[in-house]
Amino acid sequence: MKRVLVTGATGYVGSHLTRRLAAEGHEVHITMRPGSSFLPIADIWDRVRSVTYDGTVGSLTEYFERQAPFDAVFHVAARAGYDDTQVDEYLESNIRFGTHLLEAMARTGSRLLINTGTSWTHGQNRDYDPVCLYAATKAAFAKIIDYYVLAKGFKAITLELYEVYGEYDTRPKLVHLLKRAADTGIPLDITPGEQPIALTHIEDVVSGCLRAWEMAADMPPSHRTYVLDAGEVTTVRELIGRMEKIWDISVPVHLGTRPYREREVMALWEGGERLPGWRPHISLDEGLRRLRSVL
Amino acid sequence: MKRVLVTGATGYVGSHLTRRLAAEGHEVHITMRPGSSFLPIADIWDRVRSVTYDGTVGSLTEYFERQAPFDAVFHVAARAGYDDTQVDEYLESNIRFGTHLLEAMARTGSRLLINTGTSWTHGQNRDYDPVCLYAATKAAFAKIIDYYVLAKGFKAITLELYEVYGEYDTRPKLVHLLKRAADTGIPLDITPGEQPIALTHIEDVVSGCLRAWEMAADMPPSHRTYVLDAGEVTTVRELIGRMEKIWDISVPVHLGTRPYREREVMALWEGGERLPGWRPHISLDEGLRRLRSVL
Repeated sequence: MKRVLVTGATGYVGSHLTRRLAAEGHEVHITMRPGSSFLPIADIWDRVRSVTYDGTVGSLTEYFERQAPFDAVFHVAARAGYDDTQVDEYLESNIRFGTHLLEAMARTGSRLLINTGTSWTHGQNRDYDPVCLYAATKAAFAKIIDYYVLAKGFKAITLELYEVYGEYDTRPKLVHLLKRAADTGIPLDITPGEQPIALTHIEDVVSGCLRAWEMAADMPPSHRTYVLDAGEVTTVRELIGRMEKIWDISVPVHLGTRPYREREVMALWEGGERLPGWRPHISLDEGLRRLRSVL
Repeated sequence: MKRVLVTGATGYVGSHLTRRLAAEGHEVHITMRPGSSFLPIADIWDRVRSVTYDGTVGSLTEYFERQAPFDAVFHVAARAGYDDTQVDEYLESNIRFGTHLLEAMARTGSRLLINTGTSWTHGQNRDYDPVCLYAATKAAFAKIIDYYVLAKGFKAITLELYEVYGEYDTRPKLVHLLKRAADTGIPLDITPGEQPIALTHIEDVVSGCLRAWEMAADMPPSHRTYVLDAGEVTTVRELIGRMEKIWDISVPVHLGTRPYREREVMALWEGGERLPGWRPHISLDEGLRRLRSVL
């Protein structure tokens, strides 16, 4: 049994990761923001311990001094999105909170970080071409992680995610919106749908986080970046066809009624290295089958 | 006559730059923080216009909507220092304020940024090995600038500075402290003094900022980084000898009574490219002569 900390534990990825870590018998600590709901992890609420992050590094440090060192810290919390006007939200969630986390770790002897990044940092399959400010703040934070590696001996692995999906994902993301259109029969207005999409199932993402922990524990102080790629790329248009076939139901959409986003990714990142020792186990067809009879 | 904006205009570099821009007849706007003193630029206060940045992007945007677009924005404001516990100050000054500046520029049609960085980002003459969190936040901010270049067509030049010095510099930096020791006869406790130091005179730094503006105006959207190196590297110990010779007075120090800093830079960054079309005009000897009879 190890002692671990998870940020973003009430989000989609974080809640699944937290559940898995608890199921494996680890002592799981999580960070909460004032007012955030524990409902997404209500089923395991009695098996985790939580610290309220009030926006100060001190609120983390004080808790870490009593509870740390952690064998691993999983930094899953993020503010994602395309809306560049949300400057402060991106800076706060993706840089400031993360830096507070690193600093609190440094002060209290925790040194192993599993961080989550995004393939959107590499828009149009370029080494650095962030799709939006969110992706840029993730890249900026990576430079801060590098510093803690160099100056304080951290071991860090950043897992760059493509699109994460799975059962009971109610975030307003494409797969969920298409499923809802299929279930309700109400057509969804979408783009022409020629953009590529790579879906990774939530179970594979969680196993990737655990594999990264195992790997980081054995490596010298460094910051490595890997992708958790699904191994299968489709287009939005093709995805809809796959859904209709597997679900045996019409997925009503109005193709082309919405324009592509200004910096829509028409070429997915292929330059990343897949996390060694990990591969996805749930194919897109299998993942879609699982979605068939659930939300 | 052009319209320009300067951040950090009441600081050492910023005040000299602002004075020079005003002297050249430009319409100079500056950002101020609530409560910051205009005394360092009291002599030109009637020739600049100021906007109070209250910590929100809106406070800049509102002003920029009336006054912009600016032909150039000089982002000189920074929070420097070795004390990693000042996490929030570094994040606020070096990342959040800068991002607010970029976003306000993007919204109101200004696209040319002259940014200041630090050679400390390249500690031990390594491509990326920040000496301290301050230097890491500067590097993180560079990633945000890159985004505005790629997504919004900005032109940006980051000028990486070594140690800036000159007359009437009362910041508690080494040159000033040594001058004070010479003037008062009170010995200064310092390190063994074998670390290298590269001093660039404030006048050369200001002319570098102007040259960078000229260059950025002619370049395609991109973010380039250059150094304003003094062309002369000495050690702290040798510097003291030079001072004593030029000032013809003893500079009393207790060498070795203070330890080197934890990540003291024992090898200065040599990998940078000097700003094309710029060279320092004030040699170290000349700069020290100018200091002789002033503060």
